[in-house]
Amino acid sequence: MLERFRVPTEQQILIDHDSLRETVTALFEKVGVSRGDAAEGAETLVRSDLRGVETHGVSNMLRVYMEQYTSGDLNPRPNVRIVRESPGTATVDADNGLVTILGPRLMRMAMEKARRVGVGTVVVFNSGHSGAIGHHASIAAAEDMVGVCYTAAGRAAVPPFGAETRLGTNPIAIAAPARNEPALLFDAATTAIAGNKLSLARRLGSPIAPGWIADLDGAVTTEETAPRERGEYHQTHLGGTREQGSHKGFGLALMGEVLATMLAGDLPDMITDRTPHGNRHSFAAYDIASFTDVDLFKDNMDRMLRELRDTKPAPGHSRVIYPGISEFEEEKRRRACGIPLHTEVVEWFEGICSELSAPRLRRAARSQAS
Amino acid sequence: MLERFRVPTEQQILIDHDSLRETVTALFEKVGVSRGDAAEGAETLVRSDLRGVETHGVSNMLRVYMEQYTSGDLNPRPNVRIVRESPGTATVDADNGLVTILGPRLMRMAMEKARRVGVGTVVVFNSGHSGAIGHHASIAAAEDMVGVCYTAAGRAAVPPFGAETRLGTNPIAIAAPARNEPALLFDAATTAIAGNKLSLARRLGSPIAPGWIADLDGAVTTEETAPRERGEYHQTHLGGTREQGSHKGFGLALMGEVLATMLAGDLPDMITDRTPHGNRHSFAAYDIASFTDVDLFKDNMDRMLRELRDTKPAPGHSRVIYPGISEFEEEKRRRACGIPLHTEVVEWFEGICSELSAPRLRRAARSQAS
Repeated sequence: MLERFRVPTEQQILIDHDSLRETVTALFEKVGVSRGDAAEGAETLVRSDLRGVETHGVSNMLRVYMEQYTSGDLNPRPNVRIVRESPGTATVDADNGLVTILGPRLMRMAMEKARRVGVGTVVVFNSGHSGAIGHHASIAAAEDMVGVCYTAAGRAAVPPFGAETRLGTNPIAIAAPARNEPALLFDAATTAIAGNKLSLARRLGSPIAPGWIADLDGAVTTEETAPRERGEYHQTHLGGTREQGSHKGFGLALMGEVLATMLAGDLPDMITDRTPHGNRHSFAAYDIASFTDVDLFKDNMDRMLRELRDTKPAPGHSRVIYPGISEFEEEKRRRACGIPLHTEVVEWFEGICSELSAPRLRRAARSQAS
Repeated sequence: MLERFRVPTEQQILIDHDSLRETVTALFEKVGVSRGDAAEGAETLVRSDLRGVETHGVSNMLRVYMEQYTSGDLNPRPNVRIVRESPGTATVDADNGLVTILGPRLMRMAMEKARRVGVGTVVVFNSGHSGAIGHHASIAAAEDMVGVCYTAAGRAAVPPFGAETRLGTNPIAIAAPARNEPALLFDAATTAIAGNKLSLARRLGSPIAPGWIADLDGAVTTEETAPRERGEYHQTHLGGTREQGSHKGFGLALMGEVLATMLAGDLPDMITDRTPHGNRHSFAAYDIASFTDVDLFKDNMDRMLRELRDTKPAPGHSRVIYPGISEFEEEKRRRACGIPLHTEVVEWFEGICSELSAPRLRRAARSQAS
């Protein structure tokens, strides 16, 4: 993550991850989610925070989810149901359930199919936010599979040369296991920048780089600008401008609409306007043993990933990393030292835990000692 | 395609597409390819030219292929063989065959599997260049499936913050059918710009935009520069700089290495250095009827694609398009008026057709009349 998105040290409180998981589980239960589902959702969120993916952790997401449950936008006890199925595929109606909670279960459904026929793809509609889809992809990687996820939701970005928002930030994630190297875990929005990063920038007062947003008439900004309020800008697709490849980011966003929305027999939000409960997602699992020897795959992954890490750095840079490394390192640190939450977020927790009689957050042990 | 890559009118000769197909088929046969394979390869190349995808048409690719057959790098009569198989997957050793020729057959193999179990994925190793993988993906779309292809090959681009090239331009393609709208067909390199576009720029003397390339020490260029000779620059991943998202382009390139190279039990070229005959490719087909109603899918595609086309344009732009439209329009024009080839390319054809006694190119009828 770029430095501009980090919570400044003086505004952070280090929270113990077990405590955070316990509190988030309790809060989900308080709005009607079953104990098992609540724990699954807490794991998705807290794992994002542990990995340093703040955009998809508790600070940005939990209070949104709580509001959506309270308003009735999300169904805490969804009747998740397969509406069409084949040996390698399933189309699932999530009954307005939150995919931050359901994602691991849906990925395991794809993995069951992959175990039998080599690959499995599960598409989901009538569902809420996904949380970090990289988390769901990593569930496949933990069992000798490659996991791939797409999400299609919202209307955040202008297409190249367009003045109106059409597609969402539509992220893509892939996870693949290695032997000794940290697993490859790529998870990124197909917009120039994740929507949540722009919210984070607003909270932190960080500047917006050229190409990250467009004015409301569709003109892509070409200078660094101050963060703006939601509604005062449109997002752009990866590349920013057409010349820098925004047509590629746009095409990748459309991949999500095809492989999730269209295969689910659904329509994008630019037509239906059903956010937050009409999101579409796709979960694919590739059983490595159906393609090649698992040991060979992992050894080859190690060789590839080490070669990437061993790349000589460009002037002014200390090292080259691959997707998943810095998050792996961050997780080690945060398990030991705690998860840094913004003071404002901790205040929100104190308010809602008191209101709903949920367990209060505990500071991390090492942070208390210092 | 950006205007800077178009062949200038005064340097182009309009060739009849049937004549081009006939000549290319004959040239493939002259280097030992079977008649059926030669025709399949000619179709892949000429369809790229018809669609205006010059980078992957005859001008850039055919003479390279001819040299590779002549030098023995490519095998004109490969023993294409499945080395591992499951109901939804196959791993294929292409015996140094050219995937420009084999791609349609491999996609049809994936489609056969998708017909039985809903999805099919075929990965290929020991193979040559793929041609435009969008062509292979479109073969699935023509039969009520979604086609997705990845290619992993070469070492063209520096990873973010890196000074040495590691991964190739690793393109991604997806094709999906609609009812009345032109099919969605996205096919793009995960580098800031396709490698072949930099060759085209050199031939046409077109400038290189900021972010498209890096100096040999890994510093990404931030100003527009003159085209350079191969060997005097490195490519960058989509995004160009880290701040503009090159870590996303890098991650997408790694998707190709995982879903093609690793699943095939192979290693990337940065380790093996086997280009051109060690490329890896992945062909996936999704049977739409296994997920949802085909009619509903096509109607929904039409609604989505029309909504994209109907987007109000940004200042200075006349329309918004989706991937596949301008190529669809170009194909109609070129079928009628001929395929514009650079005079230098036509001279090459005249030389080799005379040398190998292959049918000479015919100018397009409408161009002769004018």
